[in-house]
Amino acid sequence: MKFLHLSDLHIGKSVNGFPMLEEQRHIFAQAIGHIQTEKPDAVLIAGDIYDRTVPSVEAVRLFDDFLTRLAKEGVTVLLISGNHDSPERLNYASRLLAERNLYLCGVFDGKLQSVTLSDGYGEVNFWLLPFVKPSTIRSIFCDTEIDDSYTDAVSMVLKTAAIDYTARNVLLSHQYYTAAGVTHVLSESEINPVGGLGAVDSGLLSLFDYAALGHLHGAHDVDRNVRYAGSPLKYSFSECRQEKSATLVVLKKKATSV
Amino acid sequence: MKFLHLSDLHIGKSVNGFPMLEEQRHIFAQAIGHIQTEKPDAVLIAGDIYDRTVPSVEAVRLFDDFLTRLAKEGVTVLLISGNHDSPERLNYASRLLAERNLYLCGVFDGKLQSVTLSDGYGEVNFWLLPFVKPSTIRSIFCDTEIDDSYTDAVSMVLKTAAIDYTARNVLLSHQYYTAAGVTHVLSESEINPVGGLGAVDSGLLSLFDYAALGHLHGAHDVDRNVRYAGSPLKYSFSECRQEKSATLVVLKKKATSV
Repeated sequence: MKFLHLSDLHIGKSVNGFPMLEEQRHIFAQAIGHIQTEKPDAVLIAGDIYDRTVPSVEAVRLFDDFLTRLAKEGVTVLLISGNHDSPERLNYASRLLAERNLYLCGVFDGKLQSVTLSDGYGEVNFWLLPFVKPSTIRSIFCDTEIDDSYTDAVSMVLKTAAIDYTARNVLLSHQYYTAAGVTHVLSESEINPVGGLGAVDSGLLSLFDYAALGHLHGAHDVDRNVRYAGSPLKYSFSECRQEKSATLVVLKKKATSV
Repeated sequence: MKFLHLSDLHIGKSVNGFPMLEEQRHIFAQAIGHIQTEKPDAVLIAGDIYDRTVPSVEAVRLFDDFLTRLAKEGVTVLLISGNHDSPERLNYASRLLAERNLYLCGVFDGKLQSVTLSDGYGEVNFWLLPFVKPSTIRSIFCDTEIDDSYTDAVSMVLKTAAIDYTARNVLLSHQYYTAAGVTHVLSESEINPVGGLGAVDSGLLSLFDYAALGHLHGAHDVDRNVRYAGSPLKYSFSECRQEKSATLVVLKKKATSV
């Protein structure tokens, strides 16, 4: 199974007053070219599709163009909302688009959604976890023990999903994951007043064959098979020296490293 | 060919401070019931889907539910934007949804879009004209003679579409049409600061087999085969005595009255 991992598109973002729409259109054209060459089975977009919960008309049009092009390429799209997105707005038409192999998961409603794709080695389950806050998870599961811990919140979601880890599993998640003992200094554009600063222990993801993460803008591995793809453009000065790239992942049979 | 003509849903509207979402949900359930009984070939929605250009999250969710239900019924949906809608936002995912026989025409870009359906009598062309202003048409066609006349603007659109009137044709349009010499007093909720007050001579539509209109909230015939379906709910006191209904239209072979 081959898939392209993207994240943090932030469509419609302006940087220091300059709209980035044309640069973003250029990046999407590059992504389409990459897809035509590499022919992945799926494209994974790990949240922050838009920069604002109510995106501009121009941003909506650009995302619509990108999504329509992806569909034309015949590639399956798996996509979650990030803390910058409106979960409900991103969910619009999602049941209809799923019939076209475009899986847009904006809202976490208590059940971790999954999509199963197959290759010569068997099935791969893709688990779609939109950005969640402890308060959301607490209210869904009526669990007062979650308190304000993002680790507890994500742990609760994964536990209730009853994932069979003997199969191949890929998680899409948009949170601030850190490996035990490693901290990460957030850039200006990663800090957002709507939340998402609470760290999640990446140890929770150790049984996944790959975790396609979004939220941090610099591409990097958090742990083995646990990776931030990074934003395709640099959105603040402190991001300038960061590696920027989409990540092409090839998943072979179970227990083969990515 | 049998179709159901609706218009002016104004999803998300509040009347005197009271949100109407639950009433609107109830109306849509009734419409689905009606569709299950009558089994029309198509549902036509003649504009003002939402009440605001940036609809609330709840309004987006309700429209999404309605659209998904309509698709599940297997009925073709033909829909245009009204003066209350954002043309571009309504256009989102429209190319993808068209593959599912859901035709959402938000933006008029200079070419009148059409969708052709067939029955035992042959083809019917449905022409989708979203709400337009003279200024839009003037800028598209670079015609200074249109001035501020809505009649000239619509006339120009229809002329450039080169419609074959020997075939069966149905127009969806969201404007303020009046028959020559007949004026119509607008209700409070029909008057909108973004425009739409300029009258269009309904004589322009005389060659259509049916014109499915939206904009005025009281169901009424403007001319022979030229009809406002009316809004499904009453949105102001002056609308209380108006007839409210969806219109079920049966179109037989050419030159048979509706």
